[in-house]
Amino acid sequence: MFLTLVDFFGCFAFALSGGTRAVERRLDPFGVMFLAFIAATFGGIIRDVIIGSVPPVAFDTWHYFAISCAAGLACIFANGLIAKVAAPVAVFDALGLGLYVVVGTRKAMDAGLSPLMAAVLGMVNAIGGGIGRDILAAQTPMVLHKEIYALAALLGALVVAYGDYYLLPSVLVAIAGSAVAILLRLAAMRWDWNLPPVAPK
Amino acid sequence: MFLTLVDFFGCFAFALSGGTRAVERRLDPFGVMFLAFIAATFGGIIRDVIIGSVPPVAFDTWHYFAISCAAGLACIFANGLIAKVAAPVAVFDALGLGLYVVVGTRKAMDAGLSPLMAAVLGMVNAIGGGIGRDILAAQTPMVLHKEIYALAALLGALVVAYGDYYLLPSVLVAIAGSAVAILLRLAAMRWDWNLPPVAPK
Amino acid sequence: MFLTLVDFFGCFAFALSGGTRAVERRLDPFGVMFLAFIAATFGGIIRDVIIGSVPPVAFDTWHYFAISCAAGLACIFANGLIAKVAAPVAVFDALGLGLYVVVGTRKAMDAGLSPLMAAVLGMVNAIGGGIGRDILAAQTPMVLHKEIYALAALLGALVVAYGDYYLLPSVLVAIAGSAVAILLRLAAMRWDWNLPPVAPK
Repeated sequence: MFLTLVDFFGCFAFALSGGTRAVERRLDPFGVMFLAFIAATFGGIIRDVIIGSVPPVAFDTWHYFAISCAAGLACIFANGLIAKVAAPVAVFDALGLGLYVVVGTRKAMDAGLSPLMAAVLGMVNAIGGGIGRDILAAQTPMVLHKEIYALAALLGALVVAYGDYYLLPSVLVAIAGSAVAILLRLAAMRWDWNLPPVAPK
Repeated sequence: MFLTLVDFFGCFAFALSGGTRAVERRLDPFGVMFLAFIAATFGGIIRDVIIGSVPPVAFDTWHYFAISCAAGLACIFANGLIAKVAAPVAVFDALGLGLYVVVGTRKAMDAGLSPLMAAVLGMVNAIGGGIGRDILAAQTPMVLHKEIYALAALLGALVVAYGDYYLLPSVLVAIAGSAVAILLRLAAMRWDWNLPPVAPK
Repeated sequence: MFLTLVDFFGCFAFALSGGTRAVERRLDPFGVMFLAFIAATFGGIIRDVIIGSVPPVAFDTWHYFAISCAAGLACIFANGLIAKVAAPVAVFDALGLGLYVVVGTRKAMDAGLSPLMAAVLGMVNAIGGGIGRDILAAQTPMVLHKEIYALAALLGALVVAYGDYYLLPSVLVAIAGSAVAILLRLAAMRWDWNLPPVAPK
């Protein structure tokens, strides 16, 4: 129940990031709804296609579509308000990141991937929505050049993958993995941590 | 027979839109052929991958590849002529849109999707080619910010999905759904309807 | 053994092209690693998803991930050195192209595709990594407007597909197909062959 709530709020936060980007890029209302849906679901779609679990969850239930539409409508009719609640939304985004990392990594391991590649796919699950959003906005994906986001996801995913692999208690592993991702992400936001760009020599 | 003709002409019209874009972006002949193929088939490829019907139709028969090559060659050797027949091509594009909406939505429902998500995937089937074309041209997909195109596809797809769901006569549903998509699309072209961009507040 | 070596060096060369591009675009270290991985594996991932062979090889073994990471680290810590060895790297890239064309086309035929479409997918296998790399860098894919690369891949793939289809000796077909792709690619680099852009008339 608690996890479902985090899932839905995380999805909502991801969808808001898509809708907000669409408004910045002056897309039309359809574009706002579409980017909200992609930002919320693209990572999970990639995960499910890669492991052959089709149709992907995003198409197998209407929940994520409905949540994305709600977020899209909020971006259309109340984008001034959304700017004001950006801070709490970023927290839900971080919680969603932590949750997706656990869910994605475990689903990948259940499908038979090795811990290492399951962690990579768990990270892709968590960052795929943002990558899809940025590609549709014709921009270089933010996770590739700004903020510590993918790295937080990857470290959390590695904790989950190897914790499960060595049969540590499942609940503890989930808490530790998501905590690593969430706390590193929140700390990076709080103190504005970035990896430095690689300079050509 | 009639449907096969509409399918092939619709595919040809989609492919022309890809080839024409490639010429505008000064791509080389290979790029023209490739964008023609993507514009004609990418929506169907996404649909088939999402529902697990692989290999996708576009790779399971040579017809769409051959039609795309013909359209690509026309763009290379007769792009002046194509500009002159843009109006009839746009009509075939609208017919193709109406057909893909019916085919895509029904295939998605046959694969077990709910009517709502089948309609969403039917719309993705119809607009996916244009999105792939624009991403490869490094541009924000046109359907996200200009013209009423995706919305026409979505409304038509919803008619098909819920008509089938409530077991209305199959032929009538197909005609109604494609008519909604085609007429809305043609009207939007005729009177230059656009959704207004969402303005940041 | 020899083929495994070519595979790994080809993968390394592809990954270097991704990492180098990421450095040019001033991405951060994570972005460099990610682009290296995508450039090395995206073509094979597309191939495997299209034919339903999931999880794709890139996720089913850690080899390609490890090689990509090594190439990414080289781009981060020694990109001055890489610029100096660009010529040998380009040769390995051409060898990798020739190998991927054979592997991809044959895997597609084994999955039941016709020779023509298997050759198309074999070409996609060979050029997909570069396309993914360029899309993530928000650029029009290089294979669509510069250099003879995809065409070399396609011609080699056609040799493999129809050679196998007519049951010619398997080893000869593999050598002939990869030789066509490799030699055409090397010649195009040596004499700077390009297809001319298609001019609007």
